[in-house]
Amino acid sequence: MPSVLPSGRGRRHLPQGPAAILLSALAVLLLGASPATAATRDVWVAAVPQTWNAVPNGRDAIHGAQFPRSQTIFPTVVYRRFTRGWGKPVRLAYERGAAAGRFNGPLIRARVGDRLRIHFKNMDTLHDQPHSMHFHGVEYKPSSDGIWLPLFSGKGGNVKPGQSFTYRLTAGSGSAGFWPYHDHSQSMEDSIAGGLYGGLSIAGRHERRTDREFVVTFAPFRGFQTIDGRAFVGNTPVFESRVGETVQWDVMAMGSEFHTFHVHGHRWRTDGGTPEDTRGLGPAESFRVRWHEDAPGTWLYHCHVEEHMMQGMIGLYRVRP
Amino acid sequence: MPSVLPSGRGRRHLPQGPAAILLSALAVLLLGASPATAATRDVWVAAVPQTWNAVPNGRDAIHGAQFPRSQTIFPTVVYRRFTRGWGKPVRLAYERGAAAGRFNGPLIRARVGDRLRIHFKNMDTLHDQPHSMHFHGVEYKPSSDGIWLPLFSGKGGNVKPGQSFTYRLTAGSGSAGFWPYHDHSQSMEDSIAGGLYGGLSIAGRHERRTDREFVVTFAPFRGFQTIDGRAFVGNTPVFESRVGETVQWDVMAMGSEFHTFHVHGHRWRTDGGTPEDTRGLGPAESFRVRWHEDAPGTWLYHCHVEEHMMQGMIGLYRVRP
Amino acid sequence: MPSVLPSGRGRRHLPQGPAAILLSALAVLLLGASPATAATRDVWVAAVPQTWNAVPNGRDAIHGAQFPRSQTIFPTVVYRRFTRGWGKPVRLAYERGAAAGRFNGPLIRARVGDRLRIHFKNMDTLHDQPHSMHFHGVEYKPSSDGIWLPLFSGKGGNVKPGQSFTYRLTAGSGSAGFWPYHDHSQSMEDSIAGGLYGGLSIAGRHERRTDREFVVTFAPFRGFQTIDGRAFVGNTPVFESRVGETVQWDVMAMGSEFHTFHVHGHRWRTDGGTPEDTRGLGPAESFRVRWHEDAPGTWLYHCHVEEHMMQGMIGLYRVRP
Repeated sequence: MPSVLPSGRGRRHLPQGPAAILLSALAVLLLGASPATAATRDVWVAAVPQTWNAVPNGRDAIHGAQFPRSQTIFPTVVYRRFTRGWGKPVRLAYERGAAAGRFNGPLIRARVGDRLRIHFKNMDTLHDQPHSMHFHGVEYKPSSDGIWLPLFSGKGGNVKPGQSFTYRLTAGSGSAGFWPYHDHSQSMEDSIAGGLYGGLSIAGRHERRTDREFVVTFAPFRGFQTIDGRAFVGNTPVFESRVGETVQWDVMAMGSEFHTFHVHGHRWRTDGGTPEDTRGLGPAESFRVRWHEDAPGTWLYHCHVEEHMMQGMIGLYRVRP
Repeated sequence: MPSVLPSGRGRRHLPQGPAAILLSALAVLLLGASPATAATRDVWVAAVPQTWNAVPNGRDAIHGAQFPRSQTIFPTVVYRRFTRGWGKPVRLAYERGAAAGRFNGPLIRARVGDRLRIHFKNMDTLHDQPHSMHFHGVEYKPSSDGIWLPLFSGKGGNVKPGQSFTYRLTAGSGSAGFWPYHDHSQSMEDSIAGGLYGGLSIAGRHERRTDREFVVTFAPFRGFQTIDGRAFVGNTPVFESRVGETVQWDVMAMGSEFHTFHVHGHRWRTDGGTPEDTRGLGPAESFRVRWHEDAPGTWLYHCHVEEHMMQGMIGLYRVRP
Repeated sequence: MPSVLPSGRGRRHLPQGPAAILLSALAVLLLGASPATAATRDVWVAAVPQTWNAVPNGRDAIHGAQFPRSQTIFPTVVYRRFTRGWGKPVRLAYERGAAAGRFNGPLIRARVGDRLRIHFKNMDTLHDQPHSMHFHGVEYKPSSDGIWLPLFSGKGGNVKPGQSFTYRLTAGSGSAGFWPYHDHSQSMEDSIAGGLYGGLSIAGRHERRTDREFVVTFAPFRGFQTIDGRAFVGNTPVFESRVGETVQWDVMAMGSEFHTFHVHGHRWRTDGGTPEDTRGLGPAESFRVRWHEDAPGTWLYHCHVEEHMMQGMIGLYRVRP
């Protein structure tokens, strides 16, 4: 049975099951240590062709317009998580929770102190272009930068179809947060427009994960203004939580436009303590905001740039009792 | 005589006049209580037709151009404060201070802990469209969200001409600041472009209000880049203060564009302590900055996006000796 | 021999050389005083014609395209530092370090508490237009504001060709940071597009300067998206440092567009403590970020707005062992 979690090399020889939990608890009590031990996580990712429908129900719910399928369905190339050795595509439980589709690359999770080995394979049989992975927020040597530039490119910035490359990353003390990753090869103009991006969620060494984590990617796709590749309510992700839960929103933007993230009925604070319910971000900027749910409701979340909202950048968030 | 202040329900049976002031002072001294008691404030607002001139003097003072009136005067629909029961339109003293006109909706003021009942009536006889009020920054139940969306809309998101709705809001602990409100009904694309927005100024429970408060709304209007609905020096609000006074600038943006707020000859700090004299904001983002005036002068304030400044987003600020 | 440093009036009669260093050290030890004494700095600047090549090697390294010289070379007007009395143009050592060219105006450096006298002469024989200097971040009287506006302009906002004006500025307690200066005269639309801007770097009273300081100005120039007036790797500044050094990046934007500053392989923190590797900024916004170099490498720095990066807003940063 293939593992659906990144394998934690640092954990391999640790005891498993209840004994491990007891030992972890003891360690925390006696030594003040974190229950999470620094690990090396192996993640298998490939760039693969995907036929993608940006508006599966074909409807612009705001204006009541209907789109023919020829205007909403496109072949493209996206990042997919695979089992070890790119055996077969796999999807983690927490990725299934939110989005209806599978547009964004996998949400790669780690903790400060962890090392990541991202094993990337270019399976782009659609455009037959080179691709790469460039990661924000984490530490790496130039060889793992994933950039293409004549004279300066390493292999990792120019992974040709059929080839693979392993990016070696470290979640350092300044890596806690939510960060984008994306193609930075020669074909990045086309491929990012087609959805070749994803997110990294790095928790602090001793940070408690929230009960829910929602990824919101603002990016244009084939004339639509999409959230995680989908446009208009009824197509964009419906995020869900329950009263009493903590939630984290991971927000990023890709492309050439600026956006303002707004959630109805909720507020959060800047890192300086100022209340907010709308925050601007431009290409490759990203942030995470958190709160505790204390009341049920169905709410809108959207980009507050009016033209973007009207072109589909809007979704639903449900807090159940 | 109709009250021109939002009625404070929580204050109704408190003593009035000098006795009240003495009691408040005593309460502060003895109990450390705030002089302001949590209140329920009733505000009466209507969407009404208004003929609006974006450039009353017809002049682009930057380029020396002159506009015919047909290019600057337009019928539109705006929010107006009314006396109880929408008896008649009314304007508060502090609203009169700054702007030459009456474009923005009323500046609704409250304190953390207050409850607000916004009694909204749609008197749009111009376009005969449904309208609503959606408030940022404050707490409310989904029924007071003011959004229009098929299946999810409550009555408050679709107030038809002639109808009314009361939005129930609470200024919570995370509500201190300056926030936009705006139409979020089916007609929001047109109505926000026409000026159907305003601001909420929520002071902290024990916060001292500044001597002056200026509202700066960056939004396009009929091809002009306007501040509070007016374009070019000579038309935009002339804000005024005196040496020794404290001033607060409430800044917000509506529409689809990003702006950078700049005031000449002054600086303020981010909530992290970094000095600034220019701050960017996108649609529905808002903030307040404050300072103490220590020298006289006539200064410019403007959006520093050059194209916006050249299309009218610039005004004067006078500090008198 | 003309001085190439702004003359520090407050320092004129202080001892020079080793004796001065010893005395400074003693003052610091005994009195807790800063080694830097508040000074009045005289800076001589002129607006002068310059033929500027935005892409000296003629190559768009990203797309492999080649531009004819007629598409990259333009006559324009820029700010230049001069010796006392505008005797002759001069360039400071630290200005030479980074950029290949001389596009931006001089980096004017001072400390909180210093006074600056900027002696500006308009030597625009190219367009024969009035010009001015408007400074962000520092304190000044309206007469030194450098703005042009009918009725309100002082002489400093309308310095005609052949004329000069002295702007009197103070680096106040809220002036620490990196700030733009630029033309704010009647011709600012054209002249800022042509490069009439520069930066002010104000250190705290007792702040230690970093080993390296890099100026990154994001602005369009004649259809290119430039950094300090240059487009595409091979033309934009190559910034250099060594392992063990501290570096400061001074980032600003001019014009009408928004940008996101990103440096590969590095992270910094907001003033609230949140890690970042990309920060958005709009026209006239500016900031400085700092870090310590602990590993060698050749990295990209760029605007992460994809269209801007593809139109040239990208450069190299080398950390030598």
